[in-house]
This record gives sequence, C-alpha cells and structure tokens, in this order.
Amino acid sequence: MSEDRLARLLLRAEIEEFNATYCNALDEQRLGDWVEMFTDDAFYVVLSRENADRNLPVGLIYCEGKGMISDRAFALDKTAMFAPRYLRHFVSNLTVLAETADTIETRANYLVMQVLFDRPDATLHQVGVYYDVFRRTPAGLKLLRRKCVYDNLLVDNALCLPV
Amino acid sequence: MSEDRLARLLLRAEIEEFNATYCNALDEQRLGDWVEMFTDDAFYVVLSRENADRNLPVGLIYCEGKGMISDRAFALDKTAMFAPRYLRHFVSNLTVLAETADTIETRANYLVMQVLFDRPDATLHQVGVYYDVFRRTPAGLKLLRRKCVYDNLLVDNALCLPV
Amino acid sequence: MSEDRLARLLLRAEIEEFNATYCNALDEQRLGDWVEMFTDDAFYVVLSRENADRNLPVGLIYCEGKGMISDRAFALDKTAMFAPRYLRHFVSNLTVLAETADTIETRANYLVMQVLFDRPDATLHQVGVYYDVFRRTPAGLKLLRRKCVYDNLLVDNALCLPV
Repeated sequence: MSEDRLARLLLRAEIEEFNATYCNALDEQRLGDWVEMFTDDAFYVVLSRENADRNLPVGLIYCEGKGMISDRAFALDKTAMFAPRYLRHFVSNLTVLAETADTIETRANYLVMQVLFDRPDATLHQVGVYYDVFRRTPAGLKLLRRKCVYDNLLVDNALCLPV
Repeated sequence: MSEDRLARLLLRAEIEEFNATYCNALDEQRLGDWVEMFTDDAFYVVLSRENADRNLPVGLIYCEGKGMISDRAFALDKTAMFAPRYLRHFVSNLTVLAETADTIETRANYLVMQVLFDRPDATLHQVGVYYDVFRRTPAGLKLLRRKCVYDNLLVDNALCLPV
Repeated sequence: MSEDRLARLLLRAEIEEFNATYCNALDEQRLGDWVEMFTDDAFYVVLSRENADRNLPVGLIYCEGKGMISDRAFALDKTAMFAPRYLRHFVSNLTVLAETADTIETRANYLVMQVLFDRPDATLHQVGVYYDVFRRTPAGLKLLRRKCVYDNLLVDNALCLPV
C-alpha cells in the first residue's frame, strides 16, 4: 500500500469536507460562518465563463480581502430580499491540481438549485466551476482564492448571492 | 499519518457507499431492497422545509417502524402509477455530525431527477437534505432515522414516492 | 483497521479521480484527451434506458474500438456546431460492482447540464448511468467499456455529443 496514494486520498477527503461545510453554511444562510472560511487576504470572485475565457475580470461579485467578503455577507443579511429563497449546493468532480507546503490548488464543478418562496418549483440558479487555492493555517484550511466561473449567461435574479 | 483522520475517512466512505446502494435501489425500483436498509424501529419521513423549520411533523410520508415502511413500498409496487416514471438520485455534501459506539449521525444534500414516460424531458422531482442516524448492526449499517427535508414547495405528482 | 477496507477505499478514490478527469476533458472540450482515456479495444455506447432495458443496441453513439471513438471526437472538433454550447458533468453514487486482477466493474449516476450560447439559461442535457469496465494498463486506468444509459427520452439536440 503506497503512502503516497493514502496521503493523496486524505487530502482529497479534507477538501471535500471543507466544501461540504462551505456549502452547508450558504444553504443554511449562515453568512457569518461563510466569511470565516476565507483568509484575511482572500480573493473571492463570481464571474461568467464568457468573461473568464477572455480574461475580463468583471463579474457578479468581486472581493479583495476578507473585509470586502464580510461586507457582502452583511449587505445580504440586512436586505429583505435575501431571505425569501432557498439555495442548495451540489459539488462534484473534485480535482487536486497542485500542492505546496502550505497551499493546495483544486477545481470542482458546482450546481446551485434555487427555490423562490412565491414559486412552487425549484429552478437552476447557477452551474459552474470553483477554481480554488486553499491555505493551511493554525485554524485549519482556509480559502485564499475562490474563483466561481458560471456557465449560464443569465443569472435569474438581480441580487449577487455568494455561491 | 494520523489514525484519526484515516478512521474518519473510512467512516465517510462507508456512509457514501450506503447512500449509493440506497439510491440505486430506488432508481431501479427495487423497493424490497430499499425496505431492508432500515432497522425494525426506524423512523422515515419526507417533509417540506417549511414544515421542518416550524417543527410541524406533517409530511408527504410519515413512517414509524419498518412495518409502515414496508407498507409504503408494497402500496407503490401494487399501483399502476409508479412504474411509468424513472427517478435518478444524486447525493452530495455528506457531513458526519456525530458518532457514538453504535450510531452515526450525518447529513447530505440530495437531488432527484424524474422522467415521466409520456414526456420526453427530465424534470426536477425533489431537492433537499437527508438528516440521518445510522445504526451498526450484525448485518451492517442500517438507517435508524432518515428525515428527508425538501426545499421545493410543490412536489410535482400526487404520489408519495420515497426518496 | 482492516487492510481490506482501505484497499476498497483507495480503489473507489482512484475511479472517482478518473471520472473527474474524464468529465473535465469533456467540459473543457479537450476531445483528444477524452479519446486517450479508452483502451484500443474499448466499447463506448450512449443509449436510452428504453432500449437498454429491451437489450436493443441502437443508440445515439455506438463505437467499437478506439478508432471509432477517435473518429467521433474528430467529427465534432471539425463541425461548427459543437462549439456554441457549454456542457457540465456531475457524477454521483459510484458503486464498485466487481474486481479482477486487471479489471474493475463499476456504475455511477451522471447528470449533464448544458448552456447554449444563444439562450441565457442552463438546461438539463442528459441524466443517466455509466456502466463501466476499467482496465489496468502500464499507462494507468483506461476504459475498456463505458455504456451510458440515459433516462430522458428526448435528447435536446441533433448532435451526438459524448457524455
């Protein structure tokens, strides 16, 4: 039994657990917990595949640093428009791309379903890819970068919800 | 290499295999196999997030004990209305919440797609969360409790299908 | 800690990594990389559950051998119709069914979302099951057989895209 394969497996499992915890925080609208999953110097962006493919940085959400991420969460918590919907995340196809002493680079596909309170059926909110860099910290893994690149051209609401 | 991390990983894998087997039984309409995945004193319920959030127990399906679960399966097998559709389950974001000597408490997101035989396209049947308690038995893991809480307010058929 | 359980876990992880790599190749339209994931004598077929259940071999795609698989990829690369859409794969519920000295038989559920460039929203392209046989080769795991059986009766385009 190779130690290498086992180390690789444990790493994948660690990232999968992180992603599950991250998605649970968003699905349960615990935005304060969500903010704590980033490093202080984290970069968080949500942009369309169209723009990502052309290296255009403009996106639905653009946050440099935990302060901006926290502002985003606060803004949503204080609006009346965030509450009346449920989101539900599905993450699949995790791939570990690179690893250094204290960072791990990965990608994974995500699918976010949405239920609006005044409509009875669930609809697709977003489908795309997480391009991530994690950093090992004394408090466990944190996101140093999460770039969410979505395929669907139109996101069906005016709000910029984190995914 | 910590033994703890490995034990945790093996536990997660065991639950993931259980959930895959569970979903395969439902997707292939082997309802007899599905019933055998519960303990004799199992609690199985399917209810809306709306009711779950208000601690209202009323749901689409409410079964106390394997006898009631078996009745549900039998009722579906004997109706002409169950056959003409395909269901397909997707489970993601498994989180182990607690573990005792003989039980494991977990949650996971689920998505069920449906194809009706008289309509050509697949539609979303249900999206939600499994809140589970597993029990270790001499015959392997069994569900002591599965609470399926779905987000979508309207489930698009009159039948109460297990998920 | 049983060596058996660990070996089983490593095998599952290996297949999951393969499937993630496979789906990434298709999602990023790297069809040349996709072809290389099959053995020379591979069998690749995409057919409806209706036909699969009746043992009818007719399907959307039928390839005996890597040459035919390569032809399929080449045909798509050279048509103007393939580019203007994004596909995104989700794989879940992996089950290892059997293992011999050099092959592994598995199944897994798949969901493929599609975004057409002239329509703003993502739609479901296909939902179904991969029935697979992998072979161990000096170059790593390869697909000896991938039978993609989809539930939805109508696939919403005239092109035969690999899934």
